[in-house]
Amino acid sequence: MASARRPQVGDIGERGLIRLIRRSFLPAGRDVLLPIGDDAAWLETAKRVLLTKDLLVEGQDFLPGLHPPRLLGRKSLNVNLSDIAAMGGRPRHALLGLGLPAATPVAWVRAFLAGFKSAAAETGVGLAGGDLSQASETVISVTVMGEADVVVSRNGAKPGDIICVSGTLGDAAAGLRLLLEGGGKKGRERSRLLGRFQDPRPRLELGRTLARRGLASAMIDVSDGLSVDLGHLCEESGTGAVIDLSRLPVSRELRRVFPNPWPLALHGGEDFELLFAVPPARLAAVLRLRARFPVTPVGIMSRGREILAVDAEGHRHPLRAAGFEHFRPN
Amino acid sequence: MASARRPQVGDIGERGLIRLIRRSFLPAGRDVLLPIGDDAAWLETAKRVLLTKDLLVEGQDFLPGLHPPRLLGRKSLNVNLSDIAAMGGRPRHALLGLGLPAATPVAWVRAFLAGFKSAAAETGVGLAGGDLSQASETVISVTVMGEADVVVSRNGAKPGDIICVSGTLGDAAAGLRLLLEGGGKKGRERSRLLGRFQDPRPRLELGRTLARRGLASAMIDVSDGLSVDLGHLCEESGTGAVIDLSRLPVSRELRRVFPNPWPLALHGGEDFELLFAVPPARLAAVLRLRARFPVTPVGIMSRGREILAVDAEGHRHPLRAAGFEHFRPN
Repeated sequence: MASARRPQVGDIGERGLIRLIRRSFLPAGRDVLLPIGDDAAWLETAKRVLLTKDLLVEGQDFLPGLHPPRLLGRKSLNVNLSDIAAMGGRPRHALLGLGLPAATPVAWVRAFLAGFKSAAAETGVGLAGGDLSQASETVISVTVMGEADVVVSRNGAKPGDIICVSGTLGDAAAGLRLLLEGGGKKGRERSRLLGRFQDPRPRLELGRTLARRGLASAMIDVSDGLSVDLGHLCEESGTGAVIDLSRLPVSRELRRVFPNPWPLALHGGEDFELLFAVPPARLAAVLRLRARFPVTPVGIMSRGREILAVDAEGHRHPLRAAGFEHFRPN
Repeated sequence: MASARRPQVGDIGERGLIRLIRRSFLPAGRDVLLPIGDDAAWLETAKRVLLTKDLLVEGQDFLPGLHPPRLLGRKSLNVNLSDIAAMGGRPRHALLGLGLPAATPVAWVRAFLAGFKSAAAETGVGLAGGDLSQASETVISVTVMGEADVVVSRNGAKPGDIICVSGTLGDAAAGLRLLLEGGGKKGRERSRLLGRFQDPRPRLELGRTLARRGLASAMIDVSDGLSVDLGHLCEESGTGAVIDLSRLPVSRELRRVFPNPWPLALHGGEDFELLFAVPPARLAAVLRLRARFPVTPVGIMSRGREILAVDAEGHRHPLRAAGFEHFRPN
């Protein structure tokens, strides 16, 4: 019976969707000079800004069956905020582009927007504009503008700098694996790992503190996996690195569910923790930050270009980048 | 023979693509504080900025068979610049997000980037960053940041303001129709109409002049068709409008190829001309601009909410919005 069908995007059309989005995100902040609905957003800003964008494609960057729309809305914004965090900036405004199949339920869009809005409210971000298109697979394109008088780039690390990481590694990849296995087992450990994958949080306060106080010489967020992202830091800085495997921060939950958590911690992506290099003279100040933020020294930047992992017995192994790269089978 | 196959995106991978893009767009402008390749772009900017984005999805917003990649690269940027033009701003920086099938030829990407770069160079825009993803259909997501101390919004028109339009209307829709019909006929008229569809130009200088000199009370670019975009201006301004059909600017080429050009001129999208309202006291100044820009008065803003078209015999007809809307069959 047609009357029982849930309303779809094709039923309310582009203008209906725009009305839904405008209503969800008003009133705009004071630095928004024109609200959503014009050809472009007009914004008051600082002299030095950060701009970043992430394109999330169904089947590639997210699996709709594994990601409730509310959490997908949160993650779509938060992965962009993680890039702002990795520069040490303060996020301000977001643009949201959505490509949707006409058969997308309107309820899906509502839940997605509610999630996006909750993550925006937690981080002081406003939705300034966006664009809609029809598509055969769902595409989410988010742009974030932030502010930063000083930033931490990827290219400032020197040999001898201490490599630190925030939080724990491998949890998000473990959560994804549990979702893909689809097992019916429940439990606090499992749901915490799922949460790390489905609803990651950007390390905005830590990133800003490191940048403002000049404590990090280089920084990146762990989105593709430690082995890949450390490779980026080293390549841009022109250094090598030695990682002490026994120091990698691994959560109690990950150890409990996966007897061998190390491949996940080394190569698993989407933790959205910060990976940063600290000059030796700043290390004491960084370690004092541990009263407020979970930070673990895990290695040291070295001369040359080799990236090595040292195991518990002191054996050195080349650390092959084996995290996520688009267009490549893993 | 595999050796004869042209290289594809899947062969060079995400990092190969990033290298290709970085090489194409260096060196960056002086207001780029960090070049492409970090977590976010870091930019020096004015206090008041414009932000806009457009999502172009294969099969919906462009048809790859009808759009050579170089011209698609130009158009992907230029449709965003048209939004900046419609606010009266000056575009500065772009972000480029590409979702590509792994089988996309690298030569396609090179041609796309060359086109994007040529349009950027013509308008003083730099590529500051972006994102890549694999996708089953090509998705192009462009964000542009511009600067504007003053803007012209969509909502400032008053009854009695004169409605003006730049250039000619309907050419792009005619070009699309010729492409879809696929006829083998050549000729100067036809190729000019094709060019209007495949390679539209943003009216940046006119938009900026109108904003800076306070000549327009409301403005929008004609992307979805005059009937739709005039509807937006009226809805946001709380006015009606009367359009004089005999005054609609229609090109000689359009008249020659289409005996009845009026439906195309009224409802055809993608001309990326400017549609704006002029207070009566400013009309003389706008008409003097015609020494530098093609501008035609086509009607008047009215009280109430009705939008009417007056034909050559003086008969008034309601002007139904019949241009492009996503998620709706036209």
